[in-house]
Amino acid sequence: MYNMELKKLGYSDQIYEILRQRIVTLSLPPGRKIDIGKLSREFNVSATPIREALKRLVERGLVRYRKDTGYWVVPLTDKDVQDIFVLRKVLETFALNESIHSIRLWEIEGLLKDSRQLLAGDVSESELRKIFDEMDELLHYRLIVGRCKNEFLKTFYTIMNDYIAIVRHLNERIMAAIEEHVEILEALKRGDLEAAKVSLARHLDSSAQACRPLPRSVEEWEVALEEVSIKKKEV
Amino acid sequence: MYNMELKKLGYSDQIYEILRQRIVTLSLPPGRKIDIGKLSREFNVSATPIREALKRLVERGLVRYRKDTGYWVVPLTDKDVQDIFVLRKVLETFALNESIHSIRLWEIEGLLKDSRQLLAGDVSESELRKIFDEMDELLHYRLIVGRCKNEFLKTFYTIMNDYIAIVRHLNERIMAAIEEHVEILEALKRGDLEAAKVSLARHLDSSAQACRPLPRSVEEWEVALEEVSIKKKEV
Repeated sequence: MYNMELKKLGYSDQIYEILRQRIVTLSLPPGRKIDIGKLSREFNVSATPIREALKRLVERGLVRYRKDTGYWVVPLTDKDVQDIFVLRKVLETFALNESIHSIRLWEIEGLLKDSRQLLAGDVSESELRKIFDEMDELLHYRLIVGRCKNEFLKTFYTIMNDYIAIVRHLNERIMAAIEEHVEILEALKRGDLEAAKVSLARHLDSSAQACRPLPRSVEEWEVALEEVSIKKKEV
Repeated sequence: MYNMELKKLGYSDQIYEILRQRIVTLSLPPGRKIDIGKLSREFNVSATPIREALKRLVERGLVRYRKDTGYWVVPLTDKDVQDIFVLRKVLETFALNESIHSIRLWEIEGLLKDSRQLLAGDVSESELRKIFDEMDELLHYRLIVGRCKNEFLKTFYTIMNDYIAIVRHLNERIMAAIEEHVEILEALKRGDLEAAKVSLARHLDSSAQACRPLPRSVEEWEVALEEVSIKKKEV
């Protein structure tokens, strides 16, 4: 679907963004070897801009390189997922100190309203996933982290957000997560920093615990993703 | 001094590393515009591998890009420095939970011995700076952060470590910092996690407070760096 003609200028920029998207949406699953020759034919460019894009993805932590075997998508283990949640807890509860007074009341009330609509079951299964993904990104990334004043924290979190997006696709406890969001949002609405921090920490701990074991090889990933895509079609 | 012949293969890799070093050692000071044409003549290569190296440095947060003006070294403000120390405190005190039992006794005792030698005044002024820089990196980066098991925290900290290195060159309270290191090391030796955390947090707070106002423009940076280099020659 990306088999378009790439503009002459900025090949590697475009390839970088396409590959990043493929990794984040799991269309290139964790642990998959990256075939430069195949990409070169797909995009009809030489190997050079592809290698440059891959080097930037290595810098971002999404791709690994080994001299003898080349480039591959970073594998993602159960321990990685737990590490991400633990680090999110540290960074997000810290960010909340500064962001709580910068989040506007109408934003909190908007998210509360949407959350309650989802809890009332007014939307279809496929819409639920889509709306929840947006709400989750809005609450954690744009508001809690994005409104804090520490630019370095925001930069690091942006890199981590790619991993969070990868993991988000494999999480099935949407309703429980929305209830936890409501708890956080109500504390934010009251301006109660300590209660908001406690609810946020509990929400991230529960999410970490609810993560089912990840596939442990590229083959297992492909089976798991096939199941998810069949589910999506059934809806 | 880098005016060597670059190997035909991996131009952009080498240029990336040279530019990263120049930024971290302040030979390319914060806020300096990067002149692609000049680098192209210096390294005797086309603009393409230089641009690729710059894009990777943007990914790493050391270089900024704006469409109309091109590439320049990230400016560094007093607020950035404070943000770095605050975030270091969050990440390092957290990392210490896991690393305290992985740091070996002989490493702690070695650092304690070196610290006491420096405090006793047994080394020259120029050696003091060099040995302190190594000790500081060893304690904070290799041991406290490096021995923790959270791979994501380590990755982010590695990026932040480039900024820490930039700032380290402008810090003049070496003796006080060594005394604080001794306090942390003694707590580590006793295996006293809480005391080690308190000492570490206090050390980072003091370091943040002791930072003198940074130069606010490229011109001011150049004057400040000139003074540092004159001091070095006088020693």
